[in-house]
Amino acid sequence: MDNELTTLCYIEKDGKYLMLHRTKKKNDPSHDLWMGVGGHFEKGESPEECVLREVREETGLILTDYKLRGVVSFSDNDWYEYMFLYSAYGYEGEVSDCNEGDLVWVDKEKAVTQLPIWEGDRIFLGLMNEGRPVFSLKLRYENRSLKAVELDGVKWSDHQIISYLKKDKR
Amino acid sequence: MDNELTTLCYIEKDGKYLMLHRTKKKNDPSHDLWMGVGGHFEKGESPEECVLREVREETGLILTDYKLRGVVSFSDNDWYEYMFLYSAYGYEGEVSDCNEGDLVWVDKEKAVTQLPIWEGDRIFLGLMNEGRPVFSLKLRYENRSLKAVELDGVKWSDHQIISYLKKDKR
Repeated sequence: MDNELTTLCYIEKDGKYLMLHRTKKKNDPSHDLWMGVGGHFEKGESPEECVLREVREETGLILTDYKLRGVVSFSDNDWYEYMFLYSAYGYEGEVSDCNEGDLVWVDKEKAVTQLPIWEGDRIFLGLMNEGRPVFSLKLRYENRSLKAVELDGVKWSDHQIISYLKKDKR
Repeated sequence: MDNELTTLCYIEKDGKYLMLHRTKKKNDPSHDLWMGVGGHFEKGESPEECVLREVREETGLILTDYKLRGVVSFSDNDWYEYMFLYSAYGYEGEVSDCNEGDLVWVDKEKAVTQLPIWEGDRIFLGLMNEGRPVFSLKLRYENRSLKAVELDGVKWSDHQIISYLKKDKR
């Protein structure tokens, strides 16, 4: 079985996230959406080696303070991905150009409620903002539409999913 | 890249771990060693779905209280594995026979210090016993011998590794 392993990091500063507007990469399933920075594991990397390298490559920043927030198990039809999700609170360096899109500091609330992001991202960003301890979130998509959510092994009802997504849009 | 994804669970009761003495499986790299119970992810499983299924299959127990303790990134020459490590504190059912070996309740201290276990297992069992929050541990083996340890992105010196393994053997 081939499991895609990735990291995603939300770097915070002054109430803002460093968001990547994915505009430049070809055949990007996230084209034109916004998200944190990260990418695929290279052979033998630990999660933190991957996130440090990806942040450095995509932003030019060296993280000095970062924390694992959760693990997200994605599926969409026959595609599976396991993503280690990080927050970062400290770094060295200046933000440089990114070859995958445009990097913009965005107010945290606005990032969740107003930018075009994946539906599931609204859920884990909400959990992060609530300060929930390290969580395991399973997100099942079909044709890019969110169909099922499980948090720490407990399945959410459709009602819960809808009201959670609405809550974040308030 | 093919990443092996697994879970490993240490079920606790009355100061003991439910340890599996790996004696029955053919071509088992852990043959004759002792460890918790767990195994490989099936397609699309989340970490907790995998650990619940593996514990049920190997022990007959249904976990009712379990917690992610860490993620361990293993390598040994050209082999790579990412393992989600759990503690379990509650379950339903009775321990049944396991087709991979013998299940024995072993005093926690004895399990770490006296049973034949992988060197790296002494390290993560020590971290679990210290009550460390969810950690990321990288263990690099060569030909089954532990060569390098990184904890939450910080490399241990050889001195640290040796003294930690000795400490656990006190």
